[in-house]
Amino acid sequence: MINVTRLQRDLGAIVGEANALTGDAVPARHTQDLWGSDLVGHAALVVRPRTATELAEVLKHCNGIGQPVVVQGGMTGLVSGGVPNEDEVVVSTELLSRISAVDPAGRTVTAGAGATLADVQDAAAEHGLLLPIDLASKGSATIGGCVATNAGGVNVVGFGMTRQHVRSLEVALADGRLLTLSTSLVKDNAGIDLKQLFIGCEGILGVVTSATLGLQPSAITRTGAFCAVSDVDAALRLLHTLQRRLPGAVTAFEVVWDDAYRTLEPTGVRLPLPFGHPLYVLVECRGSDPDGDALRFASVMEEVQDDVLAAAVAANATELRAFWAARERIPAEILRMQPLFGFDVSVPAGELAKCLREMRFELEKSWPEVKLLVFGHLGDDNVHIAVITGETTRDRKPEVEHIVYRVVTASGGSISAEHGVGFEKRSYLDYTRSAGEIALMAQLKRTFDPNGILNRGRMIPWDGRVSCATGRGRQGGTD
Amino acid sequence: MINVTRLQRDLGAIVGEANALTGDAVPARHTQDLWGSDLVGHAALVVRPRTATELAEVLKHCNGIGQPVVVQGGMTGLVSGGVPNEDEVVVSTELLSRISAVDPAGRTVTAGAGATLADVQDAAAEHGLLLPIDLASKGSATIGGCVATNAGGVNVVGFGMTRQHVRSLEVALADGRLLTLSTSLVKDNAGIDLKQLFIGCEGILGVVTSATLGLQPSAITRTGAFCAVSDVDAALRLLHTLQRRLPGAVTAFEVVWDDAYRTLEPTGVRLPLPFGHPLYVLVECRGSDPDGDALRFASVMEEVQDDVLAAAVAANATELRAFWAARERIPAEILRMQPLFGFDVSVPAGELAKCLREMRFELEKSWPEVKLLVFGHLGDDNVHIAVITGETTRDRKPEVEHIVYRVVTASGGSISAEHGVGFEKRSYLDYTRSAGEIALMAQLKRTFDPNGILNRGRMIPWDGRVSCATGRGRQGGTD
Repeated sequence: MINVTRLQRDLGAIVGEANALTGDAVPARHTQDLWGSDLVGHAALVVRPRTATELAEVLKHCNGIGQPVVVQGGMTGLVSGGVPNEDEVVVSTELLSRISAVDPAGRTVTAGAGATLADVQDAAAEHGLLLPIDLASKGSATIGGCVATNAGGVNVVGFGMTRQHVRSLEVALADGRLLTLSTSLVKDNAGIDLKQLFIGCEGILGVVTSATLGLQPSAITRTGAFCAVSDVDAALRLLHTLQRRLPGAVTAFEVVWDDAYRTLEPTGVRLPLPFGHPLYVLVECRGSDPDGDALRFASVMEEVQDDVLAAAVAANATELRAFWAARERIPAEILRMQPLFGFDVSVPAGELAKCLREMRFELEKSWPEVKLLVFGHLGDDNVHIAVITGETTRDRKPEVEHIVYRVVTASGGSISAEHGVGFEKRSYLDYTRSAGEIALMAQLKRTFDPNGILNRGRMIPWDGRVSCATGRGRQGGTD
Repeated sequence: MINVTRLQRDLGAIVGEANALTGDAVPARHTQDLWGSDLVGHAALVVRPRTATELAEVLKHCNGIGQPVVVQGGMTGLVSGGVPNEDEVVVSTELLSRISAVDPAGRTVTAGAGATLADVQDAAAEHGLLLPIDLASKGSATIGGCVATNAGGVNVVGFGMTRQHVRSLEVALADGRLLTLSTSLVKDNAGIDLKQLFIGCEGILGVVTSATLGLQPSAITRTGAFCAVSDVDAALRLLHTLQRRLPGAVTAFEVVWDDAYRTLEPTGVRLPLPFGHPLYVLVECRGSDPDGDALRFASVMEEVQDDVLAAAVAANATELRAFWAARERIPAEILRMQPLFGFDVSVPAGELAKCLREMRFELEKSWPEVKLLVFGHLGDDNVHIAVITGETTRDRKPEVEHIVYRVVTASGGSISAEHGVGFEKRSYLDYTRSAGEIALMAQLKRTFDPNGILNRGRMIPWDGRVSCATGRGRQGGTD
């Protein structure tokens, strides 16, 4: 067991007594993912470094005594990555929330790991600039968490994932080294681009303490439509036509299957289109021509009319926001239908329809009444699937997971599109990654964190040392 | 010294006798960068694996006996990274040139490391798709080389560097492991994104044997203009206005200073604008509306007229190609003015004018008649600088380099924007990277290539083991 008294004293000496919390002083939010999770941890000691240097010193101290730590941002992850084990010290980045001045010439912003995504978006917007990372959880999600998980969201089809926006990082390593990796420059090929290692590493190789992010000019106009289509192929044709006819303009392409759309029925939310179509698409384009953009968008929509069963083209920004309100309400409504099993997976878009059919077929063998509620980001190969078996307990979760991940893997997909691995998917990592890949991850873990103090057991197993799974899914790795 | 006879026999048994070349059978292109370099090597033995597996076996064999190798693609690099040391086996990727079928649904192409960029571009174009990596050397540059150096080029302002287009890689490690890293999916956050390590690592951590790259829809229209502006600030305002008014449309923004532009004088190339303006800009935008795009572009050009001293708007595609022909001729004309010292550096765009003034000032102290010919990619913070001291020898190269890199570093720039480090810039890496960063690179090198057989001595020093420089430029790394 962890010696709380001694650690509180020693780490309190680094971060200040008021920032080393134990017992009843620890807020409940430190023990569980914000949106709930099967895993509920125990936060025996929470330390809140006030500077990156303090955070690095905390790591150095813990590394010296072999004390494991878990790093927490906004706890908006969905894989229990930040849920503390009993023997871990919680290192919260919440006080590292400073947002430095936006650089309008270089179009960058530098933010502490603990700054929320929404606050950084706002800072950029004040300069007519856009941070093109957008998540439903932006009010709580932190920049450090976005970088550590390579967060996706609704703008990936237009701008790419978080990785694409990171110019430089400040990172604290397990042994207390504090490094600035790369520069704010667009191009900087002076040596290995080390920051890439820490983007999406879920904190197992090092802790992001601040990030410099590239910004885009804000759009002047937004056009969009809510459409019904008959199937995934029609949706893909719609996407590809829009991308070809309005190059660089498509910033979002969200799909919702009818079963998921119907969760809006009891909410009273204004529906852009009636229920009953197989598949719905919310598309948004950016532009700059208040007169011409709507016309051009309408003309493309005419071009694709054979593929569109029904369409509501947003007459103005208010209506487009209403479309988004409907789309963004869906995850919350789905979450109310507990118990359910939620999945964030990637499947090659061309294989998706077949994959979902297969998944339903396999699940129906065990649960004839199973429901699949599906929505996601088709342009990014990414869907979110809620499986409702009809049972009242979560006891058969592993069975459901095995079926879903096996079918996804067989379709050439990935067990994690944008939510990472954490604890939740750790035992399925080898469905998507080969044994050779996992061995390389473990090799990196041993190189950067030989004592395994950082987010131990997340992503890859820990049994007294970093160990490897066996590669059940993918071939191609020799070892 | 290398035992050529024995190695030829052993490696010939792997790659086939006809693909293990020595003596006069070795083409001269294996000894030197294609565009020339100060360093001329000796290719005692060149092996040409026919498959990735053969390449991995070659590495395994060499690793087992501690035999260093150097990997060669199209030799279009400019930092002598592929120039062989006397004791090295040359591993050429030229036979790994297969281009697999383009996937139009997933918009990807898979190509062997030895496929030329031009061939892969052509394969994509057959499907109405664009590989948005474009370099003047595309006829010789290989996909493996582009990935290993994270190549830039003229489209970075619109589409990003090579890294942004890589979906998955096949990589051979020093010990002979052959791994497929990641998938062709847009989103795949299942574990650490290992492929990032090998993009831009210049082959010191592993050898790229094939790559799956994401493609974009081809543009339907191209509009563009050749403009004269008074200074960098005016050029930046022009860029930012274009990006705001035509979101997602700007695909190239090239700048040429007057002294560099004047090198076209004796060539008879048709000049878009007369000499004598301080700075020239070639801008290109993509679009899809044959009627409207030219009008919209012209209207933006009107909006910025206060910043534009003169402009030739391309009336049609032929004229735009003529503008590019002028721009692309410049590097070749500059190269004729030997002896000169060429630099590929990044400088924050807002600091660039000041940086160039300072550089001239410092160089004039030693060479009062010094000429600086400058052109580059302003939207990417990247300029290419040719320094002509007026001396007839290259003896004082280190002095010139020290001045240029010192001024670039003081301006917050990088000693390498898009050409990498190789042998050429190795002793300057610590101008841009901190000692802590370089130590981390060395740590990775030791992890992945403990015997140091891969591209030994490139990027980071080798003196019987991987060693580190001392961090003369950047602060911020503790060790």
